[in-house]
Amino acid sequence: MNANLGIDLQKLNIAQKKVAVSTEVERNKILNAVADKLLERKEEIYSANLRDINQSERESAAVPLIKRLLFDEVKLLSAVEGIKQIISLPDPKGRILEARELDEGLILKRESCSIGVIGMIFESRPDALIQIAALCLKSGNCIVLKGGSEAAETNRMLTAVFKEVSNDLSFASIGSDWIYLLETREQVKEMLEFDEYIDLIIPRGSNSFVKYIMSNTTIPVLGHADGICHSYIHSDADIAKTIRVTVDAKCQYPAVCNALETLLVHKSIAGKLLPVLKKELELEGVEIRGDAECRSIINCKSAVETDWGSEYLDLILSIKLVESIDDAILHIHTYGSGHTDSILTESIQTAEYFMNAVDSADVLWNCSTRFSDGYRYGLGAEVGISTLKIHARGPVGLEGLMTYKWKLYGEGHIVSDYTGNGSKKFTHKNLPRE
Amino acid sequence: MNANLGIDLQKLNIAQKKVAVSTEVERNKILNAVADKLLERKEEIYSANLRDINQSERESAAVPLIKRLLFDEVKLLSAVEGIKQIISLPDPKGRILEARELDEGLILKRESCSIGVIGMIFESRPDALIQIAALCLKSGNCIVLKGGSEAAETNRMLTAVFKEVSNDLSFASIGSDWIYLLETREQVKEMLEFDEYIDLIIPRGSNSFVKYIMSNTTIPVLGHADGICHSYIHSDADIAKTIRVTVDAKCQYPAVCNALETLLVHKSIAGKLLPVLKKELELEGVEIRGDAECRSIINCKSAVETDWGSEYLDLILSIKLVESIDDAILHIHTYGSGHTDSILTESIQTAEYFMNAVDSADVLWNCSTRFSDGYRYGLGAEVGISTLKIHARGPVGLEGLMTYKWKLYGEGHIVSDYTGNGSKKFTHKNLPRE
Repeated sequence: MNANLGIDLQKLNIAQKKVAVSTEVERNKILNAVADKLLERKEEIYSANLRDINQSERESAAVPLIKRLLFDEVKLLSAVEGIKQIISLPDPKGRILEARELDEGLILKRESCSIGVIGMIFESRPDALIQIAALCLKSGNCIVLKGGSEAAETNRMLTAVFKEVSNDLSFASIGSDWIYLLETREQVKEMLEFDEYIDLIIPRGSNSFVKYIMSNTTIPVLGHADGICHSYIHSDADIAKTIRVTVDAKCQYPAVCNALETLLVHKSIAGKLLPVLKKELELEGVEIRGDAECRSIINCKSAVETDWGSEYLDLILSIKLVESIDDAILHIHTYGSGHTDSILTESIQTAEYFMNAVDSADVLWNCSTRFSDGYRYGLGAEVGISTLKIHARGPVGLEGLMTYKWKLYGEGHIVSDYTGNGSKKFTHKNLPRE
Repeated sequence: MNANLGIDLQKLNIAQKKVAVSTEVERNKILNAVADKLLERKEEIYSANLRDINQSERESAAVPLIKRLLFDEVKLLSAVEGIKQIISLPDPKGRILEARELDEGLILKRESCSIGVIGMIFESRPDALIQIAALCLKSGNCIVLKGGSEAAETNRMLTAVFKEVSNDLSFASIGSDWIYLLETREQVKEMLEFDEYIDLIIPRGSNSFVKYIMSNTTIPVLGHADGICHSYIHSDADIAKTIRVTVDAKCQYPAVCNALETLLVHKSIAGKLLPVLKKELELEGVEIRGDAECRSIINCKSAVETDWGSEYLDLILSIKLVESIDDAILHIHTYGSGHTDSILTESIQTAEYFMNAVDSADVLWNCSTRFSDGYRYGLGAEVGISTLKIHARGPVGLEGLMTYKWKLYGEGHIVSDYTGNGSKKFTHKNLPRE
């Protein structure tokens, strides 16, 4: 038992094994039962949530926080619907990613499997707990959760539902030790140092919160701190298309990570584009901050050095004129966050050059940066958006919770037979994957 | 310019973009020219190597070190052959891993691409420099190298060959800034803190060296510190097969990471197995260290607690009797290193249970742990063996140097059209992958 963390590591170890050998049917049965139990115990859940809300109101919490904290019938039904959707997803475990005959009777398979233990830290949205716990169980992972302290009572109740159902042996023999709820910041600090036991951290919440997590752990973090998204307007861009896409990327929902923050405009098109664009953006209430060359064409505020590295999350757009596509790429590599960057051009060759050169998770051609999202990409379930460069990148579906292992099936094969003169030879014959 | 590291980050940034947009033909041309140039300048390389060797001999270096340090005609020809093999591998860049129509004219592709900048730290084998630099160029990555200081002159010469060829514009316009050589330990220390610029560290060398790197950086490390490999002998195992496989796994090459270190024997088969096994192992000079129950059956040294966590890399085998397959799995999870673990059983169901439950990169049935290797697995080129649980696991081929990005191709699509009433709907139609 780890005293501070309140986790029995031996039990967690055993739970990890139990989930690893469980069948899809067992895991789906538990998820179904969780959905039923959430509905069955809804009054208890609502009153736990009411206690959290009352407490937050007594502490004069901000209105948006209380709105996120609320777990009512609408949120419950949507969470239950979410679980049903997760159940309907194909089993991500046990997929054969590669198969090869090494020699007669010696068969190699690379097979998808669970990562192990996921640490999830989220702020005050209790529905996030249900979604991520369900995704972890679906994918055969254990989970250590820490929710916002404002939602302590709700989270305790929701975790109890998962534990209660998992303990019911009529569904499966997984037991309840695959899910743990942490309650204090001290426990989170300790979890961040637990790189031997936690395989992946998924933080949800504000950028500053995610940044804090990223800089305080050596465990891989699936998430993104900033979303400083660029759009580069090439000399041959279609003006009408550019304006339409730029207004959407900036204004459709400015408070999110895939909203446009900086526009890079090729000099030769700036004279024609900027005056019209300015009119359209100002209709939407956008404040423009331009560099000196931009301001020689349109009248706007002056952009300073810090503007290029700013994620406004607001109706503000910085504009810079560039000499060439390479200047645009260099600017993106210098100030960008590797999240989502786009190009507007009528040439597919120019688009491909940009999309290959820009080192970002999502690179887009002639469309709004706002498309960069798991739901719009059709990923089924979104685990998060990642700016990790290894493992999972951009919008991440269930496969972000998976790794693989190599399975080798022999009939008593030994390596000595394959060394020295006159020895056996490997056949290395690729086999169909499934 | 980063003063201590001696790397111009602006130039590295530009080089990364140049390699990213380079074609397979260009990268292969450079590799071909490197192979030619190595042969052309072989005398200079040998004499640089001789200076390194003389220096090491003056410093009374150990014979195995000098053997590894030697870069002669045999090593050169084998390195050149290695480059030719790397050239013949299919281009790992630009593979379409997933493709989906989101709506008419809005096409999403998940495409393999280079990770960016690889940091490679290796000890005194200069041939390792050639192999990894060639693999990095093939896969479109930049590389920061640090070799053993004993090989300083050889490494400088080999790096110069890569740089010289890359600067020759008749091959490609990549330039020479994609490859850097560090020369001091201080630079390595600094590189380990450079998580903004180095995307992946690949250390080669002794276990203690790899362990040092792993515990001194937040950059992902592709490698493995220990290889504490187990074999579990189930109650129904075939005795003759078990002995054959166990002797091979322990004795065929005991100094390597995939050699067997601990044997876990089901109680009900121990009486029949152990006396015969002991005889065979002792013929090979293996020292057996058994737990109390093992010693009640055969006469051997006593295993103590530290034995279970030891990677002997020598002709020593620890043996423990277990009550059940679950006990064996628990032992492996407690003392193992997640590298390679095997089961001997005549039942495929039992084998699958073990292989699913054991959380290791490689899980084997009825064959020697020594098969766990990139060459034997038929991976083409081996970048390393990894005990990372995310990104790449077990023997890693060229794909360990790759990540992916999402490319979205539109025709002026905006998100506003997909929100609210009467809006457009996503089609989310999967497309063929290539």
